[in-house]
Amino acid sequence: MSMSHLRLGRPQESFENLMKSIEERLRSVKHKIMVVSGKGGVGKSFITSSLALATAIKGRSVGVLDADIHGPSIPKILGINKPLVYADEQGIYPAIGPLNMKVISVQFFLPEEDTPIIWRGPLKGRLIGEFLSKVVWGPLDYLYIDLPPGTGDEALSVAQYIKGISGAVIITIPSDLSRVVVKKAIRFCKELKIPILGIIENMSGFTCPKCGTTYELFGSGAGVRIANEVEVPYLGSIPLDPRISECNDNGEPFVIKYPDTQATKAIKEIIEKIIKTLEVH
Amino acid sequence: MSMSHLRLGRPQESFENLMKSIEERLRSVKHKIMVVSGKGGVGKSFITSSLALATAIKGRSVGVLDADIHGPSIPKILGINKPLVYADEQGIYPAIGPLNMKVISVQFFLPEEDTPIIWRGPLKGRLIGEFLSKVVWGPLDYLYIDLPPGTGDEALSVAQYIKGISGAVIITIPSDLSRVVVKKAIRFCKELKIPILGIIENMSGFTCPKCGTTYELFGSGAGVRIANEVEVPYLGSIPLDPRISECNDNGEPFVIKYPDTQATKAIKEIIEKIIKTLEVH
Repeated sequence: MSMSHLRLGRPQESFENLMKSIEERLRSVKHKIMVVSGKGGVGKSFITSSLALATAIKGRSVGVLDADIHGPSIPKILGINKPLVYADEQGIYPAIGPLNMKVISVQFFLPEEDTPIIWRGPLKGRLIGEFLSKVVWGPLDYLYIDLPPGTGDEALSVAQYIKGISGAVIITIPSDLSRVVVKKAIRFCKELKIPILGIIENMSGFTCPKCGTTYELFGSGAGVRIANEVEVPYLGSIPLDPRISECNDNGEPFVIKYPDTQATKAIKEIIEKIIKTLEVH
Repeated sequence: MSMSHLRLGRPQESFENLMKSIEERLRSVKHKIMVVSGKGGVGKSFITSSLALATAIKGRSVGVLDADIHGPSIPKILGINKPLVYADEQGIYPAIGPLNMKVISVQFFLPEEDTPIIWRGPLKGRLIGEFLSKVVWGPLDYLYIDLPPGTGDEALSVAQYIKGISGAVIITIPSDLSRVVVKKAIRFCKELKIPILGIIENMSGFTCPKCGTTYELFGSGAGVRIANEVEVPYLGSIPLDPRISECNDNGEPFVIKYPDTQATKAIKEIIEKIIKTLEVH
């Protein structure tokens, strides 16, 4: 049965039953990591997919839940253009992405690319709940959850469906303007009682490949400053690289295509830290 | 009376009365321009304040309404750190920013910088409605409205309060990933029956000041491609410049501090186009 024929609405079902089904579906997942940003446009989806790829490279079985109801872009970034998502009486099966990753995106459930513009947040949250209660993940070491940007309605209505999050990763850019935004993200995690694995600073400087000069296009060092200020681990910084956007647009995973770049190395170092934190206990 | 003593809630008041008050308050404004982005992090607030500044430079009286309930950053960008906002029985008076601009921001009404993280969208929209019904703008040629990013709940609940918008400006970055996002923004404007003035592409390439090489850090040319595709005017592109982020962080208006840069020139050209469109009729 293809997705377009699957009816997601079961209006009779209570919220509690929904939550119970979701919990059961996620029981086979060891570590659930939520990727949070206080605002959009910080490269959250790129970081989510790169962390997932780097984890898979380390030999772990990995899933990605693209729960960004506002702009689901994980499938495009991972090159899953025409996803093979199947459903039967057992539930919905994730698409298989690069490195054998299991991928489920809100995008798979949207009728048309540019159609549903004025959906109300809670409605979309409900959609997430509905399909989360049906996904057959199977055994996974890691599940990365790409939350909608921000700490408002949309992020909240998704986050509430997933219990037992191992930790959250907060993405920011190096600008001082993002200070308030990161603090909101931290407060968001704390109110939801999600442990914070740390802050990742994206778009941290651009080194001209020709002359070697480094420019801080979006300010500098806010990530590490805020991390110190609020006493949250600083996981690392990912430099700007024009090939990142190119890869994202072409659906070629950057960390696979450019394994020796600074950006890929930074992501792999972050994964070492995350694995150390989560697997030691 | 200082803002902190002003009670904004009037729960008895009907939505219709609220809408009527807002309309009356905005009657003295000639042109109302809404700045929309399909997603966050595209520099919407920077563009809004720069367009406002460039309009003021052209001798028009200008106001800015920072209605980005999610992350109000206009005051910081314009260097209005401790705003003098007064209220009396006539209403709330905007703060005065650079070039005599009248500025009202959601931020002026928030209790603490990082406090209200999990506000529900519609509630925040209501707050906007409440204070919009009280702002004493006085006669203005142009009012720029910085909408929350996205085309979801938050943007919608703000946009619905302001009738008679002269036109919307849509901000994007040059990446192909933003194609869907821009289309959503266009659809958003069309559903709200707001005429589209055009698309502005921000972060369009970075030219290394040392060696002169240009890099397309966030892809290239999606703005103009999409504009052609959907038959909407293309207003222009603003190149990346590390001094923009620096200025924003320091509260120094970039277009004033760096009048001869490519970015400032591009903004001024866009303003010429907008003025021509709106003032001819």
